[in-house]
Amino acid sequence: MELIKDLGEHELLRRLRKYCHPNLVGDDGAVFKVSEGMELVVSSDMLVENVHFSDRTTPPYMVGWRSVAANLSDLAAMGAYPLGITVALSLSPQTPWDWLESLYQGMKDCLDRFDTFIIGGDLTGGKVSAITEWRCAIAITALGEVKANQKILRNTAQTGDVIVTTGNHGLSRAGLEILLYPEKYQDLQENIKQKLILAHQKPQPRLDVIPRLHPYAPITGMDSSDGLADAIIQICQQSNKGARIYLDKIAPCAEILHITDDATALKWTLFGGEDFELVLCLSPEKAEKLIKGDRPLIKRIGEITEEKPIILIDNSNPDSEVLLDSNEIFNHF
Amino acid sequence: MELIKDLGEHELLRRLRKYCHPNLVGDDGAVFKVSEGMELVVSSDMLVENVHFSDRTTPPYMVGWRSVAANLSDLAAMGAYPLGITVALSLSPQTPWDWLESLYQGMKDCLDRFDTFIIGGDLTGGKVSAITEWRCAIAITALGEVKANQKILRNTAQTGDVIVTTGNHGLSRAGLEILLYPEKYQDLQENIKQKLILAHQKPQPRLDVIPRLHPYAPITGMDSSDGLADAIIQICQQSNKGARIYLDKIAPCAEILHITDDATALKWTLFGGEDFELVLCLSPEKAEKLIKGDRPLIKRIGEITEEKPIILIDNSNPDSEVLLDSNEIFNHF
Repeated sequence: MELIKDLGEHELLRRLRKYCHPNLVGDDGAVFKVSEGMELVVSSDMLVENVHFSDRTTPPYMVGWRSVAANLSDLAAMGAYPLGITVALSLSPQTPWDWLESLYQGMKDCLDRFDTFIIGGDLTGGKVSAITEWRCAIAITALGEVKANQKILRNTAQTGDVIVTTGNHGLSRAGLEILLYPEKYQDLQENIKQKLILAHQKPQPRLDVIPRLHPYAPITGMDSSDGLADAIIQICQQSNKGARIYLDKIAPCAEILHITDDATALKWTLFGGEDFELVLCLSPEKAEKLIKGDRPLIKRIGEITEEKPIILIDNSNPDSEVLLDSNEIFNHF
Repeated sequence: MELIKDLGEHELLRRLRKYCHPNLVGDDGAVFKVSEGMELVVSSDMLVENVHFSDRTTPPYMVGWRSVAANLSDLAAMGAYPLGITVALSLSPQTPWDWLESLYQGMKDCLDRFDTFIIGGDLTGGKVSAITEWRCAIAITALGEVKANQKILRNTAQTGDVIVTTGNHGLSRAGLEILLYPEKYQDLQENIKQKLILAHQKPQPRLDVIPRLHPYAPITGMDSSDGLADAIIQICQQSNKGARIYLDKIAPCAEILHITDDATALKWTLFGGEDFELVLCLSPEKAEKLIKGDRPLIKRIGEITEEKPIILIDNSNPDSEVLLDSNEIFNHF
């Protein structure tokens, strides 16, 4: 087995170059253009082994895919199109080359899907400066561009705005459960199992939705990387508003209900995280048009209120009111 | 003693916000403008405790200063002016708050010197997502802008170009030596000791020189973060040229000769690294004007040749020819 430490820096850089933008030269920095009239959006992330991913649940290809997806999702959450990413790595010298190759292949495949590239990093400086005796850490900075009036911010929600989400929530968390306890789910239908695992291992940032939002700008929102509940709470806090969310509109997917009880399924749907969907707020008229054009991908889940609390409304039980609170969100279920 | 883990994420972010750009809001990404007609320059770095710095030789304030200086130097090496940096951190929960505060103060003081800011990072996402049980890792991405025709690249050196450097080399390495073996240098003159230690702990990226280079664009070059010899070799390799370097023009500083023998002093001067000076190549006419206007900061050390080898020329011993080679640079001394 080839180990990183046996390859030497020069050979390592040579091998990794094919995963990067073809124009990437070994200079002190990468140079590129932001389109005229566009603003630059920058987002940084550090993923650490055994904290953000583990070999147990995530093969290196998937670690690469997910780390890129998370960063592209941050761009989508701002309404921005990707210009490229930079990658800085801290690796153990004992890391097998195969592991690193799979990591980069995963990054590249996710980038390819969205026509973007690795444009720089600690590799381009001519040194892999961060080889340590320790576990892997991956620092990614995503660069994107957006027209000023098409920026999606968190703090601009208005009373009466309709709250919509793309896609479904809780699937990634359900997939993780299957990966953590495979023996428990060995009799599960294969197509359900694969769908949930794929949701966890190869999430899709919602860049596909961005062009369809342009006619309705400006829109408030963010991604649901830390969970649907977190996104709603962040938007309300930063906009100094509250919200009413309809429980029947955020009912867990059938696939999730296949593998767990109702209460757990709702918990995963609200707090699971890493589904990388968008949670957006816009006026009722705009929301109606957007939903009409994008059914069933985009659906209405509630509305922004002037009063602060975020209330979960159960239509089948009109007397019940569950509050969503940032300090206690996990205590409600 | 306050530990990171006892502060909680919200309080930690609140405390760190004062070191960031005042307009920084907690959104998925930071948004800013690149000036019209300018290209974007991006450079990423990861610094890992006990690999790139250690508490033994570098207090946290200096770690912060040096990590920012290294990244701003990458921008200077491209001829670019800083727009800001992003910072992503991996910290042990056992990290004392005081340590983190000093780290950020060091980063901020270095940024202030060059009128720039922390504009984003893993902090802005509303989570310190990378707290681990392990040593500290700091990932910095520096963003800068440059006019297309003022870019400084490594691969454009021409035969006959004069090679110049800013400042002095080897001082940072000498400062490290004093920090590593303080007992050995306890009788050293205080002003020399302080100068060398400062060169190691608070290096100055050469952004001050960039505006003075504009009249002579385009210029070839890079910074000497990995050593003077490395910079010369990188430029020659990427430009497919060789060089003649005059040993008397790269003679070690008096301060270095105060603390070590001639051979070691020359070794530190050529290979020490982390002086963050610029090594530049330009036509003899342009070089003459640049040096004239900036003496003694900028000085001529050699010239680019068509023939590949990089020759160190000792005028006092015309028969000697020492070759500088990327695979053997350490073996020549």
